[in-house]
Amino acid sequence: MRPLVTAIFLALCQPAAAMDPCCATGDLGLVVERTTGSLLVVDRSDRAAIGRIQGLGDLSHASLTYSPDERYAYVFGRDGGLTKVDMLTRSIAKRIVQGGNSIGGAISDDGRLIAVSNYDPGGVKVFDADTLEMVADVPAGAKTIGLVDVPGRRFAWSTWETGEAFMADFSGPEMVLTKLGDVGANPFDAVLTEDAHIYLIGLFGEKGVTAIDLWDERPKPVRFLKDYGKTDDDLPVYKMPHLQGWAFTEGQYVLPAIGRHELIWVDRENLQEVARTPMHGQPVFIVAQPGSPFVWVNFATPLNDTVQVVDSRTHEAVKTLTPGAAVLHMEFAPRGAEVWISARDDNKVAIYDTRTFELLAEIAADTPSGIFFTARAHRTGL
Amino acid sequence: MRPLVTAIFLALCQPAAAMDPCCATGDLGLVVERTTGSLLVVDRSDRAAIGRIQGLGDLSHASLTYSPDERYAYVFGRDGGLTKVDMLTRSIAKRIVQGGNSIGGAISDDGRLIAVSNYDPGGVKVFDADTLEMVADVPAGAKTIGLVDVPGRRFAWSTWETGEAFMADFSGPEMVLTKLGDVGANPFDAVLTEDAHIYLIGLFGEKGVTAIDLWDERPKPVRFLKDYGKTDDDLPVYKMPHLQGWAFTEGQYVLPAIGRHELIWVDRENLQEVARTPMHGQPVFIVAQPGSPFVWVNFATPLNDTVQVVDSRTHEAVKTLTPGAAVLHMEFAPRGAEVWISARDDNKVAIYDTRTFELLAEIAADTPSGIFFTARAHRTGL
Repeated sequence: MRPLVTAIFLALCQPAAAMDPCCATGDLGLVVERTTGSLLVVDRSDRAAIGRIQGLGDLSHASLTYSPDERYAYVFGRDGGLTKVDMLTRSIAKRIVQGGNSIGGAISDDGRLIAVSNYDPGGVKVFDADTLEMVADVPAGAKTIGLVDVPGRRFAWSTWETGEAFMADFSGPEMVLTKLGDVGANPFDAVLTEDAHIYLIGLFGEKGVTAIDLWDERPKPVRFLKDYGKTDDDLPVYKMPHLQGWAFTEGQYVLPAIGRHELIWVDRENLQEVARTPMHGQPVFIVAQPGSPFVWVNFATPLNDTVQVVDSRTHEAVKTLTPGAAVLHMEFAPRGAEVWISARDDNKVAIYDTRTFELLAEIAADTPSGIFFTARAHRTGL
Repeated sequence: MRPLVTAIFLALCQPAAAMDPCCATGDLGLVVERTTGSLLVVDRSDRAAIGRIQGLGDLSHASLTYSPDERYAYVFGRDGGLTKVDMLTRSIAKRIVQGGNSIGGAISDDGRLIAVSNYDPGGVKVFDADTLEMVADVPAGAKTIGLVDVPGRRFAWSTWETGEAFMADFSGPEMVLTKLGDVGANPFDAVLTEDAHIYLIGLFGEKGVTAIDLWDERPKPVRFLKDYGKTDDDLPVYKMPHLQGWAFTEGQYVLPAIGRHELIWVDRENLQEVARTPMHGQPVFIVAQPGSPFVWVNFATPLNDTVQVVDSRTHEAVKTLTPGAAVLHMEFAPRGAEVWISARDDNKVAIYDTRTFELLAEIAADTPSGIFFTARAHRTGL
């Protein structure tokens, strides 16, 4: 039997064969097409679209995460939909509507649990990654934001109305829920450093940023950058920045100044501001280019046709690109050689060489927003 | 045609089906079986061996790297063999003997080039990743060590007899070879920090460690830790430590003391020694547990049945395990939840939970040494 199976398998797996689908999944990705509720399947190595998956519901604000084998994606949609997508067959494996308005989710480090953060009805729901059966419902009496996975089958999140942070531990037979502390008024987003060390929480209702050391046996909130936040009314805030876009580089945090055309650099050790960088517009995402001293920044409307590259050593912008109309997201090849940039209103994804800034390719996409490569399966805190 | 293909494909891809092979490759790995010249194919999610590939030649000292799609492994054997292995069909796709004694290799960040470091005849050879045709032969007049990939289709290495470091840039139509500098007498191994920033070179012929800042426009060697090296004759050096095992954590480098039962902690900013940790034996590999403050250490013969866990904040050993006889290597799940440890003389791989230290599973293997998960495809400098 084995030789026959292998023969069929080989026939299917020839990369150049007319017969899709491809087999290895390490260099694949998904691009969210926000208007059509679809996902474009892309191949990084070929710099090409290789398929489209439809029927994902409302993807006007969507994110996703991958299973450890890089076969499945779990897509969190604005309509409360949780959709499990098969990268190999390029089809929906399972779809449920688990809430009224979900804003993000995470997968446990063992790949067995999917947690979803909800605005409506609030709280966090946790599902079996295989079946999408619910395994825990954690009401919060509040909208939950900044949900992240933490090593050891754990998740952390914060609550908008009540200003708290929580950790849920699923490593034992029963979930253990711990309050990490009061973090300040109206946290609007939160992010985990790439070493799962510091959980950083941005506040909307008051000034400052809250940090919680998750390596501590008794984690507690520490406030810093106490003049951070929306202070003046001279500049409207066109879009709340995504803290998922905070970069961590050269011993620094890089934060978007709220409502201002600036980046703020903070020393990671002493939590003091060390520099500001004037920018083209209000920063939205700030993403570190792997294996480099550079961060890439996109901007809020109406200045959102531009991307700037900033050197984290000098804090100076070293390059300005205009990839297209309405740049919504940037995703790096995991080792940093190239960056994929979505230009929603030009219906394309533009691919640049990160050293030469040469435009390598463009891929047609329908109102593309988030770009997610499968390599994310192996990273913590996404 | 598509439905039929999909049906066949689905039949093949059912994870629990009797019909191998599996399809998605994100959670696979290879274990080097050194005595038999074979590779054990393992599935991280199932904690199981799922196949064996034979005919790899002399694997008594071997390493490997993965293609970006996580389909192929490139295996560098002691006999100069370069073998391309297909993870999907679990077979050898191509094998050449490219030198007399190779000691390691690397894959370019775009996945197109494989570089191999040779003792005999020395120098570096570069091959097309698809065909294994040679695309460059860089004689060095010396044994080459510490070969690493650097972002931008580049490779760096050092030379044993002549004490130099080089960078080869393959991003243009012709290779550009640059000497990075004289690094000291008899470099025995070198390693690149995970952000591709600092290339660290250990010396055998004189004391000290050499660092080269690869982000600098004109990289130059800087010597530090000037009393580092084999100094006394009170302890024989049972095995030269692998610098690939140097850990980078909490703003520190962690180095194995040569010939001594100690770790040396160095501040990454000022390159000064900050602490030493007494250990069970002579450290060989020191590996950072992802998403944690801990490093795991194994030891040279005859004390090689033991693994110790050290907290990089306090520099104290917090746990001692005895996984089996002749522990040769440790590999973490990419998000750190568990560690796989090879015990050569017990013919097994032991899997531990990194938080509870519970033994989760054991896998039979024939004289296992190196363990390599496919997630390495997405990391720089391996």
